[in-house]
Amino acid sequence: MKIIGIEHIGIAVKDLSKDAPFWSKVLGIDRSKTEDVDGQGVITDIYNTGRGKIELLLSKYPDSPIGKFIEKKGPGIHHVCLQVESIDDSIKALKENKIEIIGDTPTIGAEGFKVIFIHPRSAGGVLVELAERNDS
Amino acid sequence: MKIIGIEHIGIAVKDLSKDAPFWSKVLGIDRSKTEDVDGQGVITDIYNTGRGKIELLLSKYPDSPIGKFIEKKGPGIHHVCLQVESIDDSIKALKENKIEIIGDTPTIGAEGFKVIFIHPRSAGGVLVELAERNDS
Repeated sequence: MKIIGIEHIGIAVKDLSKDAPFWSKVLGIDRSKTEDVDGQGVITDIYNTGRGKIELLLSKYPDSPIGKFIEKKGPGIHHVCLQVESIDDSIKALKENKIEIIGDTPTIGAEGFKVIFIHPRSAGGVLVELAERNDS
Repeated sequence: MKIIGIEHIGIAVKDLSKDAPFWSKVLGIDRSKTEDVDGQGVITDIYNTGRGKIELLLSKYPDSPIGKFIEKKGPGIHHVCLQVESIDDSIKALKENKIEIIGDTPTIGAEGFKVIFIHPRSAGGVLVELAERNDS
């Protein structure tokens, strides 16, 4: 599989109005966009460093993946997303290597990327998202 | 302060021989270097995606920051490092904004960067490292 780079780091937050100013005002990173990704039960508030993004993730429902993560571990880094050239080739390679993925087929994530998540059990405790830019 | 981009993501690992192949072989990311950073009590095994690095962090001593992190939370994402233009300007801005930093002055981290860590209490639960490339 061909990794293009770190696309973003996903950070679970409890309160955007309290947590966003650290990234936007103190660090001075430009907000790229705010998006409702209902399929994943989150509002994503995206800051672009110019080389990789910071995605603040606010749960919309208590039982969303981010809601459960915060319940268990508190706010903090939730996942790392790597941009890949082809999500289908990547999934094929993961399956060949017996890497556990979450769901069988890609879904549409923030910014229209085609995404798949690798289970932390297969990645040394790290939740890894792979994402292919979807320009079609 | 001027953020240049995501420099790396630091990942606490228990066993490099078991955890590194996911990044190097399955994802196919090139190893950049392996370095003994004794000041932080870690071996860093660095993989460069071309746009941000993955730094695997192996504790050298049980009471190192990474040793304690693994003891408490298990292996996984430990911190995010942002490259800054000037570490001194950044520290000044952090202090003006009453952001809690760990230590008062920069130390030398992996690859010779001048680095400072921001306490997760001041960054929504995220351990943030700021790093200035040190070419002098």
